[in-house]
Amino acid sequence: MAPHPVNAAFQRQFHPSQLPIIPSKQHYLRVKQLLDYEHNSVIYLKGKQESTRDTTDVELEFRQESYFFYLTGVDEPGFQVLIDLEKDTVYLVAPNVPEYDILWKGPSVDPNELLELYDIDQVIQEADISTLLNTLKPTTLYTLPTSTPSITLCKINEHLLQPALDEARLIKFPWEIDIMRQVSHGSSEAHIALMRQFRPYMTEADVAALFRWVCAQNKIYRQAYLPIVASGPRAATLHYSKNNQRIPKGRHTLVLVDAGGEKYCYGSDITRTFPAHGRFSEEAKTIYTVVLKMQEAVLSTLRPGVYWHDLHKLSVEILCQELKRIGILIYDNLEELVQIGIPNAFYYHSLGHSVGLDVHDVGGRKKNLDESEFLFSRPLEEHMVLTVEPGLYFNQTMLDIWTQYPGYQKYFDLEILRRYQEVGGVRIEDTVVITKYGHENLTTVPKQVHEIEALMNGLYL
Amino acid sequence: MAPHPVNAAFQRQFHPSQLPIIPSKQHYLRVKQLLDYEHNSVIYLKGKQESTRDTTDVELEFRQESYFFYLTGVDEPGFQVLIDLEKDTVYLVAPNVPEYDILWKGPSVDPNELLELYDIDQVIQEADISTLLNTLKPTTLYTLPTSTPSITLCKINEHLLQPALDEARLIKFPWEIDIMRQVSHGSSEAHIALMRQFRPYMTEADVAALFRWVCAQNKIYRQAYLPIVASGPRAATLHYSKNNQRIPKGRHTLVLVDAGGEKYCYGSDITRTFPAHGRFSEEAKTIYTVVLKMQEAVLSTLRPGVYWHDLHKLSVEILCQELKRIGILIYDNLEELVQIGIPNAFYYHSLGHSVGLDVHDVGGRKKNLDESEFLFSRPLEEHMVLTVEPGLYFNQTMLDIWTQYPGYQKYFDLEILRRYQEVGGVRIEDTVVITKYGHENLTTVPKQVHEIEALMNGLYL
Repeated sequence: MAPHPVNAAFQRQFHPSQLPIIPSKQHYLRVKQLLDYEHNSVIYLKGKQESTRDTTDVELEFRQESYFFYLTGVDEPGFQVLIDLEKDTVYLVAPNVPEYDILWKGPSVDPNELLELYDIDQVIQEADISTLLNTLKPTTLYTLPTSTPSITLCKINEHLLQPALDEARLIKFPWEIDIMRQVSHGSSEAHIALMRQFRPYMTEADVAALFRWVCAQNKIYRQAYLPIVASGPRAATLHYSKNNQRIPKGRHTLVLVDAGGEKYCYGSDITRTFPAHGRFSEEAKTIYTVVLKMQEAVLSTLRPGVYWHDLHKLSVEILCQELKRIGILIYDNLEELVQIGIPNAFYYHSLGHSVGLDVHDVGGRKKNLDESEFLFSRPLEEHMVLTVEPGLYFNQTMLDIWTQYPGYQKYFDLEILRRYQEVGGVRIEDTVVITKYGHENLTTVPKQVHEIEALMNGLYL
Repeated sequence: MAPHPVNAAFQRQFHPSQLPIIPSKQHYLRVKQLLDYEHNSVIYLKGKQESTRDTTDVELEFRQESYFFYLTGVDEPGFQVLIDLEKDTVYLVAPNVPEYDILWKGPSVDPNELLELYDIDQVIQEADISTLLNTLKPTTLYTLPTSTPSITLCKINEHLLQPALDEARLIKFPWEIDIMRQVSHGSSEAHIALMRQFRPYMTEADVAALFRWVCAQNKIYRQAYLPIVASGPRAATLHYSKNNQRIPKGRHTLVLVDAGGEKYCYGSDITRTFPAHGRFSEEAKTIYTVVLKMQEAVLSTLRPGVYWHDLHKLSVEILCQELKRIGILIYDNLEELVQIGIPNAFYYHSLGHSVGLDVHDVGGRKKNLDESEFLFSRPLEEHMVLTVEPGLYFNQTMLDIWTQYPGYQKYFDLEILRRYQEVGGVRIEDTVVITKYGHENLTTVPKQVHEIEALMNGLYL
């Protein structure tokens, strides 16, 4: 297909502000297609303001609200947007910067510069909104519950815009995939650097700081979520982000790092688990290899039309078969085992999720269903960006629940289980794009046992 | 004096959690002395909860609210504190962690461990608060407006606690100074590393990331405020923290870095300004030397009993004398010049502020006065921690206001002014403790012109 003009605009990487133009008008046009709107209506959203910590004047890091970014590409505080659904005109509402604030925060950007920086049609001032609305006389103003303006001159609909935005955001445009590829590759470099530079005397906080630093060296200055650096037993805590412990000295000790950078508000999401001492113990290698098998089986099955639910089931089945082979699980009937929930003792999260402007990205139109449930219940489509992140954990709370449940003891060999328990937990997570015939893996961090050991021992070229 | 037992506790640097115990009971006892409380009363505060970004589940970095930290030393989410003013008993209220959350965030800390970690007397559960209050039957509960509980069994006073806390926090305990010395020295190392490793192809964002990384290498994992890396004309924007520009190529270009780490919630605040190309241009050196003179004059005058207001005046006078010497300002009567506000064209912030748990720390009891005004109007005391941060800026907005004001043109030589304008701005900021006979400078970054140039050219040992 001939190159799309907006894509050409995106190529202009060396804009004065060092930001590419996000073709957000295309985002709006897709939302419009998905929105069942009334004649002569408008979309309105309020962008995020700057904020300070508690009752102090300590400024918090600014990060635009994701829906607003999707429709405008603006990652600066104090903006609003109004879009005329009739004429497809995007009005960016610039904040008024009081003269005194100029000394502290710098002058406001010139409207002409805003027109160059963003894929918008007109720049107006806050005071002009009511004049504009009086001219347009819209039937309905579509907005989000968090953005509702206090106006009375038209109907306000808070419910239809979000499902349209969610559905639009689920299927990524080429430029969105381009950014996510960039940020995923850069974050992969950071994971590789961790394995090369990790030393057992480092603390979890040191590892997290090193990750951020290598991201920054790859021009990724923000994280998509708080890095999780979980060593030893903490690997079995899914969202452990305190990162305030030393790395345990045990020979099985693994370090699980779940971290990914963010650029132009688009995130990446990667987990690697490596041995603290540079070589996997036999037990750790066994557990690691189970998770790798789960992930490889899923990755080789990914393509449009496949149901997420079936992929999750596939990963669970491999888990059970492998745990039987090792001797931790005892069963004859796999289906019955899955039915009564035994795999949840070791693998208590879903296989993955959508990634985009949010790390747990919106999952498409909700139909009275839990968001992740919904992604589960529809076939995969080209240009969805998803994580594939099976895990196997030895979490005391979960093991107690399942092994002590009346009648369930027979499924576990507790002695063998104890032998592996010190391994803590393993998760392997890649971010992938669904392509026409399969997938593209945006994550480029090696994950084979021999590759990780080579990286950690300076033997990987 | 014999060593204080709580100080000994603080020495225990290698606590399992890697945190020293903050002797917060002493903080409470000082607040009690400053609080005009009724017989049989209690203090109550709610600590901060975890929070997520906008309507997403993306967790935000947790940082305890400063007043709560002062009274408890607890930097974890979900706690509350209740203190019996009659018996000086500190009850820490631990959060209930639902079983499901344990999988995601890990188990809650054992009460006995909490008693070891913090300077508290008892740990109770949330459900026990009302039982405890029913037993204590307090006359009044002293709290902050942001912490008011919904109870009716006693009077609630929201107004007396804050002034007592503010006054207590203004004068630092030895252990507070110890932490701030540690964090200031570590942050100083980061400033030194910037000067050594800076290269003109770096962007402002690169410099900010490098600063954070060197802080982390010094075990400082948080910043007291968003780093300001302002190059060229942006140096004249006081709270510029976008840090998203390339460093301009001009020969006068300066890079102003205002950044300081934070540890155990205590901050540091340091600014250095260095030449992008490793050597100051003659014009830049001239302007830099003016600011250095202002700072040195103030530092040599610091001691208990001196008024902040007089120190600011001293810095303004040196500024004016120097600008006259250079030829930018023209005047005969210095007092008149200051009176009509001309120095504000170049120096539009106050000389400094208190530093502590907040970077712009609470300034003591307020008596219907603006906070910084108040610090201005009382003599310095031993163990205040303050910044000394004179500046000289060429900010177009300010210069326009003052040079174009009717009748004021005669004070400026616009031709000479223009020659220096490209220098942008200079600020030099140290954090100091007022001692018995003078001050201790907690900032250890060199600041003489020859030292900075040596650092930047690999000649400083």
